[in-house]
Amino acid sequence: MTDIGIALADIRKAAERIGPYIHRTPVLTCSGLDGLVGARVFLKCENFQRTGAFKIRGACNTIMSLPDDLAARGVVTSSSGNHAQGVALAARLRGIVAHIAMPETAPEVKKAAVINYGARVSFCEWTLEALDKTADRIGKETGATFVHPFNSLTTIAGAGTVATELLEEVSDLDAILVPVGGGGLISGIAIAVSEMSPRTRVIGVEPEMANDAYQSLMAGRILPARPPRTVADGLRTSLGDLTFSIIQKHVNQIVTVSEESIVSAMRFVWERVKIIIEPSAAVPVAAMMGNKVGLEGQRVGIILSGGNTDLDRLPWIFSG
Amino acid sequence: MTDIGIALADIRKAAERIGPYIHRTPVLTCSGLDGLVGARVFLKCENFQRTGAFKIRGACNTIMSLPDDLAARGVVTSSSGNHAQGVALAARLRGIVAHIAMPETAPEVKKAAVINYGARVSFCEWTLEALDKTADRIGKETGATFVHPFNSLTTIAGAGTVATELLEEVSDLDAILVPVGGGGLISGIAIAVSEMSPRTRVIGVEPEMANDAYQSLMAGRILPARPPRTVADGLRTSLGDLTFSIIQKHVNQIVTVSEESIVSAMRFVWERVKIIIEPSAAVPVAAMMGNKVGLEGQRVGIILSGGNTDLDRLPWIFSG
Repeated sequence: MTDIGIALADIRKAAERIGPYIHRTPVLTCSGLDGLVGARVFLKCENFQRTGAFKIRGACNTIMSLPDDLAARGVVTSSSGNHAQGVALAARLRGIVAHIAMPETAPEVKKAAVINYGARVSFCEWTLEALDKTADRIGKETGATFVHPFNSLTTIAGAGTVATELLEEVSDLDAILVPVGGGGLISGIAIAVSEMSPRTRVIGVEPEMANDAYQSLMAGRILPARPPRTVADGLRTSLGDLTFSIIQKHVNQIVTVSEESIVSAMRFVWERVKIIIEPSAAVPVAAMMGNKVGLEGQRVGIILSGGNTDLDRLPWIFSG
Repeated sequence: MTDIGIALADIRKAAERIGPYIHRTPVLTCSGLDGLVGARVFLKCENFQRTGAFKIRGACNTIMSLPDDLAARGVVTSSSGNHAQGVALAARLRGIVAHIAMPETAPEVKKAAVINYGARVSFCEWTLEALDKTADRIGKETGATFVHPFNSLTTIAGAGTVATELLEEVSDLDAILVPVGGGGLISGIAIAVSEMSPRTRVIGVEPEMANDAYQSLMAGRILPARPPRTVADGLRTSLGDLTFSIIQKHVNQIVTVSEESIVSAMRFVWERVKIIIEPSAAVPVAAMMGNKVGLEGQRVGIILSGGNTDLDRLPWIFSG
């Protein structure tokens, strides 16, 4: 695995490093879901993770890995989503400053969450360029270390701890379905699985409206995501060079699902499993419910990546 | 306990009888909730129970207790809520017919749920009299046994299994908060607690808009619930003679909470604990969040009684 610079051993070290700070999340089953899809499904509930999403794992592993002198100068990132909360909380847990570049137009509840964790927020325009520039400027001014949301070895190793936990708890999985945005989560999972349970297939799932990973694998080079129109707001990102090469090597298949099927799957999980998941986490459930892979009679892990969603704007009531 | 005809031994027998058919539901904790209320809270998640509510426990204990000759003639009840689903599923599990008298105006999703479990539905007007009369008529015509939603020994013993599970899993509880409608759940819990953990206080919580248990305890006789205006649709029922006498004897205190606080508590649990609870289950959470009892620094069990709620009509978006 040295060609991609990360192996199961790194994920094990990450698990040890972040263990005191994160939740070991439960794995739930639901006979209603099993009956519907004709398989045995194991839901790894990162919606119950601290900050409400798996992102804290990568942020925490990165921030806890920093040498003291670097850490003392703080960390910086640009995000209005789950990564921002992960960085903010992980920095507080280490006792250092987190700077977050965030669009002025981000929802109030997301601004408040980050500020509650004690982060310093710098508002800018809602473009990738403005966000990058703001984070860059802060990094130069303060010496803060940039914490990438997915395309770094420590982030990927942190995300991979989702898989080591799942595989320790559930044996003999035939497949694991993972939502794909920037690709950090599926990269970490695929590396862990390739060593711990090589026969288990790792399958990425994307919204049709943001199928850049699928297109990139087909093209053999990174193609950017189209303008972000999907309800799965966590999956609007394009792959990075690191995650692209890991996915090329270790992921068996990428499938895509429609917007309607994402909303239906999300609603099914709320109604029948009685847990809150965000649209991005519904994406692999939609693949299962739509029989996109052919996993009848098999044992399937699904990563429910997060549970942060606006309860005032449910996608089956309000669209857009 | 012979004066009220039910003791811990009956609840233990119920647990054994229904064990193969129901879920042993998880107990969750949430540091965000603990921090807010200044106590250690243990959430007993009957929202994850089969049919989405604790009601299946009482229905199942009643139906599995019937002698074969009686059971062969089926069971009947009148309900449009969680009890109807509990009876329908328990009857299917025993392989007998369930007749459900239900208002014509009941939500389609509730009709469908019961019919999906294979029950025969008789529609009638939406009055207590019409429901009772319809159930009576069916009983006379078919010989089906009436399954009471709360005021029977087997129902109460079944409900009490919530407490035996909770007390087996969590030690040293200072108090348990329970929503009160007809009083079956709190009756079963209070009996179990009185023998298993006598120092644990059992506290009932009601909506101010349906405070008939509180008023009845004050008056020393059963007073009917006022017209059902509360958002907590599972708690609009009045006490029965059996549940009233058990509550008088074994429940330490009844407190009431406002409609606004119920909706806020429900939303807090959805947003922060990431689980779906129905308004009735939010009632004891509201008491905790509103510091209605004075339990700072204590270990408190809260019974989340169910998770069936209309996802098209969330109470913080739509009122009434």
